[in-house]
Amino acid sequence: MAQVSFGVLNPPRRILMGPGPSDTHPRVLSALAAPTVGHLDPYFLQVMNETQQMLRQVFRTQNELTLAVSGTGSAGMETCVVNLVEPGDRMVVGVNGVFGGRMVDVARRAGAEVTVIERPFGEVFTVEEVAEAVRKARPKLVGLVNAETSTGAWQPLQEIARVVHDAGALLVADTVTSLGGMPMETDGWDLDAVYSGTQKCLSCPPGLAPVTFGPRAIAAIEARKTKVASWYLDMTMVRNYWGQDRAYHHTAPINMNYALREALVLALEEGLENRWARHKRNHLALKAGLQALGLQYAVAEGNQLPMLNAVLIPAGVNDVAVRGQLLNEYGIEIGGGLGPMKGKTWRIGLMGETCHPRNVLTLLAAMERCLTAQGVKVAPCAGVAAANASYAAA
Amino acid sequence: MAQVSFGVLNPPRRILMGPGPSDTHPRVLSALAAPTVGHLDPYFLQVMNETQQMLRQVFRTQNELTLAVSGTGSAGMETCVVNLVEPGDRMVVGVNGVFGGRMVDVARRAGAEVTVIERPFGEVFTVEEVAEAVRKARPKLVGLVNAETSTGAWQPLQEIARVVHDAGALLVADTVTSLGGMPMETDGWDLDAVYSGTQKCLSCPPGLAPVTFGPRAIAAIEARKTKVASWYLDMTMVRNYWGQDRAYHHTAPINMNYALREALVLALEEGLENRWARHKRNHLALKAGLQALGLQYAVAEGNQLPMLNAVLIPAGVNDVAVRGQLLNEYGIEIGGGLGPMKGKTWRIGLMGETCHPRNVLTLLAAMERCLTAQGVKVAPCAGVAAANASYAAA
Repeated sequence: MAQVSFGVLNPPRRILMGPGPSDTHPRVLSALAAPTVGHLDPYFLQVMNETQQMLRQVFRTQNELTLAVSGTGSAGMETCVVNLVEPGDRMVVGVNGVFGGRMVDVARRAGAEVTVIERPFGEVFTVEEVAEAVRKARPKLVGLVNAETSTGAWQPLQEIARVVHDAGALLVADTVTSLGGMPMETDGWDLDAVYSGTQKCLSCPPGLAPVTFGPRAIAAIEARKTKVASWYLDMTMVRNYWGQDRAYHHTAPINMNYALREALVLALEEGLENRWARHKRNHLALKAGLQALGLQYAVAEGNQLPMLNAVLIPAGVNDVAVRGQLLNEYGIEIGGGLGPMKGKTWRIGLMGETCHPRNVLTLLAAMERCLTAQGVKVAPCAGVAAANASYAAA
Repeated sequence: MAQVSFGVLNPPRRILMGPGPSDTHPRVLSALAAPTVGHLDPYFLQVMNETQQMLRQVFRTQNELTLAVSGTGSAGMETCVVNLVEPGDRMVVGVNGVFGGRMVDVARRAGAEVTVIERPFGEVFTVEEVAEAVRKARPKLVGLVNAETSTGAWQPLQEIARVVHDAGALLVADTVTSLGGMPMETDGWDLDAVYSGTQKCLSCPPGLAPVTFGPRAIAAIEARKTKVASWYLDMTMVRNYWGQDRAYHHTAPINMNYALREALVLALEEGLENRWARHKRNHLALKAGLQALGLQYAVAEGNQLPMLNAVLIPAGVNDVAVRGQLLNEYGIEIGGGLGPMKGKTWRIGLMGETCHPRNVLTLLAAMERCLTAQGVKVAPCAGVAAANASYAAA
């Protein structure tokens, strides 16, 4: 058998302004490349401890059961759902985008009887809608997406958590896109289980899924009558590896955990509140610029995610051509629409390291060129000027 | 809330001679630290293509459905099992170590009716034992561990595959520890599904699980009446991301895939047969040295894995003290026994980059010192001398 190998790895330099992954800080890349140690090495156990302590700060929680699942964000979703539901358990899931729909699929595979409540893509749920659904369905668990990566919509959760708890249910929240980029309060909002990913506002490459489980969630896990459907994601075992026992479960992705640790150090050096403010400031400037280019947001004012700006593609503009030109001429990645939004929206990310004025201005200048190439009339430098004015006013 | 971050990441330099992870080549670490691109970037799609082509060569297969699952080796096990069994399906699993036992657990969680066949830890199954089990149980799937990481035992599979197929069943093989370090022939042995990990003889940090599915396995997946229990590991969707469609499923661990690609390039540059020969040569030298130090193998001659040397801890010798001295004085990690072998064996790995004469000699010299510190009588330099003689004779 002839053996064929390939040449030198040589990825292009991109500005990652899509829905994630975001740009990675050089310190995080350096951490990735640090020498591998064993998964039971005292040094790695210390890395795990430090990572847990920092994850608790980023999640804004005292939850002991806070750790990084050895998979990407979707593995975090699956971890929360399969640990909290048993076959026959009732669950209510809010579907207003692709990731709510994914949660329904995950829950049904785990044997849950799922009641779906729906809003059109880009909209969010009111407290009353959720209250009514839990009154009717009497679920064990409610799942909502705090930040819908497919639509750019922000779902407030604090009041919803109250009505969910009043009905005796638990609330699991998808914060894959929001964590580290805008206020998200696990304890302050009384969330029972929260999952995220590393490659959005934490700006660590994809590969780990931070999760946290509160006291009610742990009680539900401990009261299970059946084993968790997934061995790999079974928190009753994973917690013994991340906990005091350090019982071997699986071999953790050592270097990915190095990278997450460094990304968390960076986030806390900046300060979470400063980081949230930075995301908001750059979002406002980008928004001013995009609107000056004639692009309209797909989500109503008040529910727009600062780190994920979904805008409607103007009539007559070729989605693929614009994204291709941005990528090939400027090295800028933005995202297309997902699911039913395919061809209808662009998703422009300002996450973590990517969320910087230089990227806002570059994107606006390049987008002007691309729109003009599509025959759209744009006043010269309208986008950049509007963004600069926004920064000046901030 | 006070925000506390931690200092500079500074992992100690280790020689990783445990059961994995193994030492990582500097080129693999450099690849890990290459700039992150998006998971749908044309460059990353090319990386996936190249990785698949190289994985096929390492797995020795033409199987189209060959890819890296976005989790560690145990996620590879779970992927194979949950995609191939449906609730009520019968499966036979051979348990002669921790990882066979794990497969039983995974299969039962997926709803399989599992028949366990057992051999003591360190032993392997005969063709007749497996033939009898499949005659009685009439399973859909048989699971066996080609290389038991917990015991160091090598399970031949070629003839077993024949009797499994004669009975109309499929064979899934755990090659986490063997792949890349000794002959393993997916097509030549007619294996239906094979999984591995990256952190053993491929010497890539942990975080991905190479898997391959043959035609019978794909037919079984396509004939499923129920959805795969795990959304994250559902090959009917994952294959559309790795296949021609490039349909988004989850965000692949970009930088980990860079690293795996580079690790595969290194393996194929060396040549698989040369790599297998290197593992055997160093294993023989290590074995000569360990035996000269009075250490006996826990597995019978003929079934000893070259990359994982399990030896019995001599009576009166303190397991933890010796491993601690090796780690703290020499920076050498070896593994303790797992499961019922805890405190009874050491597992000395010679995997991938670790598998080098300098590490063999260093370990033997350091082990002599540690055994002597435990009161064991050893002729000075007996281990090193025996290893050098083995190399000279090779």
